[in-house]
Amino acid sequence: MINRAPPDFLTPDMADFSVRVADWFEKLRDNICGQFETIESAAEDSPLSDKPSGHFERKNWTRDGGGGGQISVMHGRVFEKVGVNISVVHGQFAEDFRAQIPGATDDGQFWAGGISLVAHPQNPFVPAAHMNTRFVITSKAWFGGGGDLTPLKPAPKQANTFHADLKACCERHDPDYYPKYKQWCDDYFYLKHRDEPRGAGGIFYDYLDSGDREADFSFTRDVGSSFAGSYVNIVRETMNKHFTAEDRHFQLVRRGRYVEFNLLYDRGTSFGLKTGGNIEAILMSLPPEVRWP
Amino acid sequence: MINRAPPDFLTPDMADFSVRVADWFEKLRDNICGQFETIESAAEDSPLSDKPSGHFERKNWTRDGGGGGQISVMHGRVFEKVGVNISVVHGQFAEDFRAQIPGATDDGQFWAGGISLVAHPQNPFVPAAHMNTRFVITSKAWFGGGGDLTPLKPAPKQANTFHADLKACCERHDPDYYPKYKQWCDDYFYLKHRDEPRGAGGIFYDYLDSGDREADFSFTRDVGSSFAGSYVNIVRETMNKHFTAEDRHFQLVRRGRYVEFNLLYDRGTSFGLKTGGNIEAILMSLPPEVRWP
Repeated sequence: MINRAPPDFLTPDMADFSVRVADWFEKLRDNICGQFETIESAAEDSPLSDKPSGHFERKNWTRDGGGGGQISVMHGRVFEKVGVNISVVHGQFAEDFRAQIPGATDDGQFWAGGISLVAHPQNPFVPAAHMNTRFVITSKAWFGGGGDLTPLKPAPKQANTFHADLKACCERHDPDYYPKYKQWCDDYFYLKHRDEPRGAGGIFYDYLDSGDREADFSFTRDVGSSFAGSYVNIVRETMNKHFTAEDRHFQLVRRGRYVEFNLLYDRGTSFGLKTGGNIEAILMSLPPEVRWP
Repeated sequence: MINRAPPDFLTPDMADFSVRVADWFEKLRDNICGQFETIESAAEDSPLSDKPSGHFERKNWTRDGGGGGQISVMHGRVFEKVGVNISVVHGQFAEDFRAQIPGATDDGQFWAGGISLVAHPQNPFVPAAHMNTRFVITSKAWFGGGGDLTPLKPAPKQANTFHADLKACCERHDPDYYPKYKQWCDDYFYLKHRDEPRGAGGIFYDYLDSGDREADFSFTRDVGSSFAGSYVNIVRETMNKHFTAEDRHFQLVRRGRYVEFNLLYDRGTSFGLKTGGNIEAILMSLPPEVRWP
């Protein structure tokens, strides 16, 4: 279990809120892992149904300085590799890093909790997916996150459904969210060196502090649930498609782009790696098998 | 063919010298490619001798602004993927980049020629290898380069031989070179996030301008030839070793470290990618097949 005792610098209200948020991330993790395991055990007609059904394995890590996380990883016949990580950490940002974080310039104290999911399916016709939501407290406090889809073989129908689901989610909370967060996602998940997007996009938001923290938390919960519901449907819809060795090769080459993005551009990855984060949790995002032919 | 016409800003002496240097890089490329193809065609006893013998394929690219390069890549039964790139480029560094380059603060004009080699062998017992030498002219001029070995399965004997060969090379030119350039290599090819070296090291040097340009050129030629001789011996010595599926898996996982280094830390890779270099030439260094299980 992750030690979630709130640090002293939080007000009693914020301490209570941080516990509720961390509870939600854990609940979402349990819900998603449960749904993914159900898909695995029901995958009787998939091209890889002769392989054993996958189960999540859990591993705890602790952070020097405060808090820790839980890695859940499954290697299955539908999900070649899927990681769902939750973490609750607190401490003090290094002095030379404080200027980059809102509200951290004073004493650099922070609390951060989040969930992060990356799925790399076996079948080239099942899109890969990424979802992350987080809550950060310094002298300010905000939610951030999003979800995006990376079809390996083109999947325009699934990409449209995914966007429609996220749009509906956004519109339940604020009519401005979807266009703004879709654009943010398109801008962020872009491989400049190849002049191509990482995938079919989705939504990306950060520094969300609308003035109504309960509303922001409600939106963040909805993003997690909507992503999960949408992606589970997409997986079920595509996992039984027949694929060839050529399709598989194409998938492995396209996965190289995923690696290039995460190691060259992803803020979380490079920050985590360069500041002593948990390597296994951070690099959980990398695909299990990749080719640069 | 690469257009090697020296740009106007070079003095006649420097223009002549730049042509000699570019000639050498091409000659070294031809020599190495020839030796590697000989190894391929003679690999009758290797575990993969049922596969066809590899041959280098060439591709030219031109650079917007001046010059270009030639990619030589081979996919064979000994060398799963080996790239040997040469390039001769010139132009003007972007203003915000000039401060990082010696002698470029004035007008930012430059000429650069070089050779770059990365070999990823099939057999996990054959170390991967990297070699690069280059000559750069701004208002200053210098040589840089080096060679290093990345055993996938541990290969202490080969690593020792490789270092002995590079040490002998260095000592033919300056007794200070080997300890200094070995340390530079150890410092440079280091994965900070994993607290581990990329491989068994070698030598790395840059900004070499001893005051005797012919001597520096002679050293750089010797580095290229010594690397080639040493590595060809190492490949011949290890290529027929029997390996298992477990050895292969281990190799593919270790290759992930190679990718992590090149995309997270390598100066040439990130600079090239972020400033519009030739993607295919720059990413030639990435292994053909990789696993992050």
